[in-house]
Amino acid sequence: MNYGMILYVLGWLLNFEAAFLIPPAAVAVIYREKEGLCILITMMLCLVPGLLAVFLKPKKRRIYSREGFVITALSWFVLSLFGALPFRISGYIPHMVDAVFETASGFTTTGASILTDVEALPHCLLFWRSFTHWMGGMGVLVFIIAILPMAGGSDMYLMKAESPGPDVQKLVPKVKTTASTLYGLYVVLTVLQVIFMLLGRMPLFEALTTAFGTAGTGGFGVKNTSIAGYSTYLQVVITIFMILFGVNFNVYYLIYKRRFKDVLHVSEVWTYLGIIAAAIILICINILPGYANPLIALRDSAFQVGSIITTTGFSTVDFDLWPAFSKTILVTLMFVGACAGSTGGGLKVSRVQMLAKSIPREIGHVTHPNSVRKVKIDGKQVEHSVMRSVNVYIAAYILVLAGSILIISLDNFDMTTNFTAVAATLNNIGPGLSGVGPTANFSAYSYLSKIVLTFDMIAGRLELFPVLILFSRKTWLK
Amino acid sequence: MNYGMILYVLGWLLNFEAAFLIPPAAVAVIYREKEGLCILITMMLCLVPGLLAVFLKPKKRRIYSREGFVITALSWFVLSLFGALPFRISGYIPHMVDAVFETASGFTTTGASILTDVEALPHCLLFWRSFTHWMGGMGVLVFIIAILPMAGGSDMYLMKAESPGPDVQKLVPKVKTTASTLYGLYVVLTVLQVIFMLLGRMPLFEALTTAFGTAGTGGFGVKNTSIAGYSTYLQVVITIFMILFGVNFNVYYLIYKRRFKDVLHVSEVWTYLGIIAAAIILICINILPGYANPLIALRDSAFQVGSIITTTGFSTVDFDLWPAFSKTILVTLMFVGACAGSTGGGLKVSRVQMLAKSIPREIGHVTHPNSVRKVKIDGKQVEHSVMRSVNVYIAAYILVLAGSILIISLDNFDMTTNFTAVAATLNNIGPGLSGVGPTANFSAYSYLSKIVLTFDMIAGRLELFPVLILFSRKTWLK
Repeated sequence: MNYGMILYVLGWLLNFEAAFLIPPAAVAVIYREKEGLCILITMMLCLVPGLLAVFLKPKKRRIYSREGFVITALSWFVLSLFGALPFRISGYIPHMVDAVFETASGFTTTGASILTDVEALPHCLLFWRSFTHWMGGMGVLVFIIAILPMAGGSDMYLMKAESPGPDVQKLVPKVKTTASTLYGLYVVLTVLQVIFMLLGRMPLFEALTTAFGTAGTGGFGVKNTSIAGYSTYLQVVITIFMILFGVNFNVYYLIYKRRFKDVLHVSEVWTYLGIIAAAIILICINILPGYANPLIALRDSAFQVGSIITTTGFSTVDFDLWPAFSKTILVTLMFVGACAGSTGGGLKVSRVQMLAKSIPREIGHVTHPNSVRKVKIDGKQVEHSVMRSVNVYIAAYILVLAGSILIISLDNFDMTTNFTAVAATLNNIGPGLSGVGPTANFSAYSYLSKIVLTFDMIAGRLELFPVLILFSRKTWLK
Repeated sequence: MNYGMILYVLGWLLNFEAAFLIPPAAVAVIYREKEGLCILITMMLCLVPGLLAVFLKPKKRRIYSREGFVITALSWFVLSLFGALPFRISGYIPHMVDAVFETASGFTTTGASILTDVEALPHCLLFWRSFTHWMGGMGVLVFIIAILPMAGGSDMYLMKAESPGPDVQKLVPKVKTTASTLYGLYVVLTVLQVIFMLLGRMPLFEALTTAFGTAGTGGFGVKNTSIAGYSTYLQVVITIFMILFGVNFNVYYLIYKRRFKDVLHVSEVWTYLGIIAAAIILICINILPGYANPLIALRDSAFQVGSIITTTGFSTVDFDLWPAFSKTILVTLMFVGACAGSTGGGLKVSRVQMLAKSIPREIGHVTHPNSVRKVKIDGKQVEHSVMRSVNVYIAAYILVLAGSILIISLDNFDMTTNFTAVAATLNNIGPGLSGVGPTANFSAYSYLSKIVLTFDMIAGRLELFPVLILFSRKTWLK
């Protein structure tokens, strides 16, 4: 285990975190908020260990899969811990566990909150809260890779550990170029959304923070009513962009390269759009009796479906009041999640696709035992190792899900609350149902439960294994 | 596809079902109940198509895996359909869907009921209701195999399709001998339980029906209060026998053959007992504040844990009133289920073992990519094909679970009710929580939901694939 290199990358991470704090500090200056001081103190607290670690350059700079996973997992815990300081120091979130929960919820683009009154926060802290979504969405290490020169090949392991999906596809042979291309596309889409929202007369501050929340599929809003207070135009714009940010970014790269034919073959995206369409229609029909205007029902149905399947977590209505059928569809979508290679969470459409395709294959195997068949996606056979890791992923996922529900059930809330609280954090969505529904929040849980849910958010964002690996004795052997 | 042979076995099945109706008919004679007539009519209705099908002997008697699965799935549907007739004809269950639900619940040893007043039923119908548990527990086709001579090797496919667990182990090379040995052990254990209960002064009729419910891990009782009205001695006896019937029957065979050393190596059984012990202790501590006497808390905790993990479904307290932590443990146990090769349902302990062991293996694979490792159970490597089928099983299981919850949520009950209704039927347990808790029943659901839940019971009992195979076009090709 290359401990020197782990420390080195974590050092860089803290320096970058200090840099990420510059925009909220600027916001503090613009709005003349004294909480800017807390941000400056945090920057110092990041830079002291950060610069120290960077100066202790390790001799051996080569890292492997193991270090890649460990660095990634530790990075996200460190990031959330230091990122929580502005909330803690300013006193707006008095307890550190709550502050870390909120920050981890930001970076992991979960959007689950322990705040009851968001509007009480100063602009600079609201900006920081939403900005963590944007940084966490595409990945903080991916950002560092895009900027920092690393030893050849090492960055691939970091990229692999941080990027979502069963199989990481490099857009171009060089990892550094892949990372910067991804961020380029990400910036362009975000700017586009800001422009569309400014056209709908949204104030710049709200346009920026809402775009951060949409782009990272995070879900933190700056209003207590989330998105409900905005016009239909703005709600539709946000719906469309939420769905766009849940698309595999490879597709945007293909469009950018004008390889339109190849786009047609990315079945994950078509499945994803198909699921969205089906869910919107079913929910719309189901909630219709409660609406005078069917178009409004369609708007609300589409917004909530887009918000949940992409694991964003914005809301425009209290869907906890919807009929059971609609709620069940939404909970199912929580688990399906967005496309691999997007900023969204959940199991990912491609994993669900592979699992669904493995069933007829097994049936075929029973009825015709001598035939050999493999699962195919986009016409290509899925590698045995990928299939195996998808299966193990599901097993680990169920284990973490059940274990977390068990621990937080000690707080004695009802089963729907506990189940959806874990589902909403592990899948990086935000709101659940009942006690953690769109109009409620996570503040009622005990600190133990909040620590478990914070763990779930980070484990969910990194797709379990980087985090689970920390608990294996073998990981720490020389 | 050998349609002739399918018809032939289904014919025999109906003749056997007519034979199974003799004991309840005898009960009707003893208690001088006129409902015995309905049983006689049902016997006739079974024998007419049954004898006809048997007389049309097929020329080709050889069947393969495919036919084995299809026959097994169809058998269970036919069995439930005809077995429902006494309830329907007598008018005690006026609607056919309800009657089939109740009968499928019996044969699949689920124990979920749509009856609000069990005690209103005559003895003969109560006896039939419980007797279906006993026949279904070890398997109706296994029973037929034990008695009927079949073409060489064909019976293995039936046995495989009907027996629970990821991997069927034959006790002895001959399938017929395996089947009759299993039934022999089953009879001995059942008789033992009846004796122990008679010693506790339970009336013979109740001792027999309760033993049927325990042996099959079914859960139908003959009292509205299930087991709550019986003495502590009887409750403890039932607890012990429930747990014994959840043990892999291979263990009893090994004990019978005095191969005690081999018993020590059946890790599934030790894991099963370990889970039970842990669950009993945790729940006992959790519910202690509500009890004056800790021994009573221990008794109630042990009974409910034994009842749920073995998927029996008897109850002595309304555990829906227990704290959330205890309820969450029980719901988790619903999914774990009993040992493979027992009469219990659920995912089975051995499957859970394999899944849990696949996680550290995958972690080891990430940290040391060049090492090859396989999952081991009882010191033996788990075959790749078994591991794959376990993984696909989980995928299919999740799919059926989610799909069923979605459909029954149209009835607009709360999420806990819907979730546990499907969990309780798919895992063949019986009661769930909330609207289908131990003091409630399934009568409130619509007929559509009841059909879905009936499907789930049979799919769960046969471990999905025999039933799913019916929906594959390839199955029906020549």
